[in-house]
Amino acid sequence: MDCNSVGLVKPQTFTFGTRDDPLILESGHSLGPVDIVYETYGVPNEDRSNAILILHALSGNHHAAGYHDPRDREPGWWDGMIGPGKAFDTSHYWVICSNIIGGCKGSTGPLSIDPGSGEPYRLQFPVVTIGDMVNAQKRLIDHLGITRLHSMAGGSMGGFQVLEWLLRYPEMVRSAICIASAARLSAQAIAFNSVGRTAIIRDPEWKEGRYTGKGPEQGLAIARMVGHITYLSELLLDTKFGRRLQSADQFSYNFTSEFAIESYLNYKGSTFTQRFDANSYLFITKAMDYFDISRSYGPLKHAFARVLARCLFVSYSSDWLFPTSQTKEMVSALLSNGKPVSFIEIDSPYGHDAFLVEEDKLARILSGFLKGMDVEVAA
Amino acid sequence: MDCNSVGLVKPQTFTFGTRDDPLILESGHSLGPVDIVYETYGVPNEDRSNAILILHALSGNHHAAGYHDPRDREPGWWDGMIGPGKAFDTSHYWVICSNIIGGCKGSTGPLSIDPGSGEPYRLQFPVVTIGDMVNAQKRLIDHLGITRLHSMAGGSMGGFQVLEWLLRYPEMVRSAICIASAARLSAQAIAFNSVGRTAIIRDPEWKEGRYTGKGPEQGLAIARMVGHITYLSELLLDTKFGRRLQSADQFSYNFTSEFAIESYLNYKGSTFTQRFDANSYLFITKAMDYFDISRSYGPLKHAFARVLARCLFVSYSSDWLFPTSQTKEMVSALLSNGKPVSFIEIDSPYGHDAFLVEEDKLARILSGFLKGMDVEVAA
Repeated sequence: MDCNSVGLVKPQTFTFGTRDDPLILESGHSLGPVDIVYETYGVPNEDRSNAILILHALSGNHHAAGYHDPRDREPGWWDGMIGPGKAFDTSHYWVICSNIIGGCKGSTGPLSIDPGSGEPYRLQFPVVTIGDMVNAQKRLIDHLGITRLHSMAGGSMGGFQVLEWLLRYPEMVRSAICIASAARLSAQAIAFNSVGRTAIIRDPEWKEGRYTGKGPEQGLAIARMVGHITYLSELLLDTKFGRRLQSADQFSYNFTSEFAIESYLNYKGSTFTQRFDANSYLFITKAMDYFDISRSYGPLKHAFARVLARCLFVSYSSDWLFPTSQTKEMVSALLSNGKPVSFIEIDSPYGHDAFLVEEDKLARILSGFLKGMDVEVAA
Repeated sequence: MDCNSVGLVKPQTFTFGTRDDPLILESGHSLGPVDIVYETYGVPNEDRSNAILILHALSGNHHAAGYHDPRDREPGWWDGMIGPGKAFDTSHYWVICSNIIGGCKGSTGPLSIDPGSGEPYRLQFPVVTIGDMVNAQKRLIDHLGITRLHSMAGGSMGGFQVLEWLLRYPEMVRSAICIASAARLSAQAIAFNSVGRTAIIRDPEWKEGRYTGKGPEQGLAIARMVGHITYLSELLLDTKFGRRLQSADQFSYNFTSEFAIESYLNYKGSTFTQRFDANSYLFITKAMDYFDISRSYGPLKHAFARVLARCLFVSYSSDWLFPTSQTKEMVSALLSNGKPVSFIEIDSPYGHDAFLVEEDKLARILSGFLKGMDVEVAA
């Protein structure tokens, strides 16, 4: 644990919608009670105006920084960005990260008990949208006594949530950072998600979602393998793995995973099944597929007219899942509304995963943006 | 049937290696007897110097042009390119296309009877390479009394075979056309193939390859879906499908395939299982993964020193599976050896599949190249 770590942290749970105030979903369904598991780092100032909300991506969760136990081998997923002296400087800011609804890490999702049946929801869990996730987060932010967030940040699906916040609760967001994201999921990305869901649903162990125990491990592993290829750039795969064989000089002339890239994907697939729920993967990828600002709020230029926050958009040169062109489209729409927006494309070989991997470059940019915000607030 | 069709055609079978002359594979295994199923279009000239060999890709076969039956709804897979007056003009050339070994369309492969056991080979079929496929084709070409091919052409894995021909039998190839291909399969392409094989192998219906009847349909469909995404460009997916729903205006809020791109992939996956054998898919993708000119023949510049043919290389602007950069690498290696080589990148939105879809553009270029060859031969 380095001296810039937030140290030991403990997840907390906020529950709402227990009685007559459930979460009304975009589908028309009501969801309640709803648990939101979250962590906070740093301390609130007197008027709670120093809060920064962190939004996680598909396989992330509320544990963004620090350790749950001194014996943990890995800290939270964005630990390089959150802590004293880091980009999200916990000596100044009160940083909050919550698990999305539909997830499998504690917030209400398909693994939770359906109060109607007393059994886990499984496929009876309603299909939720990115907007629903944000509405649930709004309840948490209200509960924490925050009237306006100093900033918020998220990459990939986390960026989708940033955008929904900007459009649903514009007056509650002073500044926002949207990384490696887009105003809608592309047909190609829907296609890859669809293959992943198909692999899960056609795994006989899925059993219409009513698996117990390990469940559709093979299907989930295949879904993760497909996803993982899309998170990395071709250049990175070439440089990191190329055509290297895993453990021999000679071809095996059989169907074992002999190339290093094959072993790597197998490993990524199988470790994922140990930490993620297959039904949750269905729900979250579906929420991503449904995400389309224009469908909900009209053409981008019109939609973004309501944004009140100062925005920073970040894309990565080798990200082919959420290419820079998709970020530029949003930046243009904001600019044409005369909104204050910054944009940078970071040169990186790491593809879509860069925001989780190359933290140094990103940290410098985010620090600068947040310092500029502080000056603005003080002035 | 248009007047430029080759009309009704009948596949033929050439068998070799029945006794003491089996095919010795790169793995060291012997394979025999070997059936090669092939079709020919046009007629040989007196000295059989007008032969053009067509090499098919992963899911192709020997049926490249014409019809097997007047009631066939579709002609052969490259019918737009082969026929009287077409690029491969059957009024001048004798065009030949054979099914690769390891395939499932008649040439010896995992569905064939293993003479040792009297049962189908299945997984007892030896892993074959692109070089092995070409060695088998060489036997056919010898059998047909051809000492030198006027030309040969292939796209994707067909291009791999073109390259092996150029390097194994340089004196037998007067000219060659290599389309949307590369000197080796990239790590990213191996990764996608590996996911496809994993989906097949982990399908419980695969049964270590000893399935009967339908077999691992779900796994094979998933493999094809993944493959199909890589054959198309992001732009094409956006233009052709975008975020359009298949049959409704409203979201279904369930896990049916509601986006048009999902329906399309499902359709492509399920029709493929009706026409392709899952074990064959394993063998052919493995042969692709193994393909690497540098591993077999040394650095490209050194390897290509032996090429004697006039070559044409074609790539497509939106092909991200076999990008233009990979073609340029080969062209440079030939040029630095002072070899006669032409190269064109065709501007197309169709991605890797363009060579099968946008036949008009390709036909004009190939016609020109072949006419130039005719002038050269006549001179």
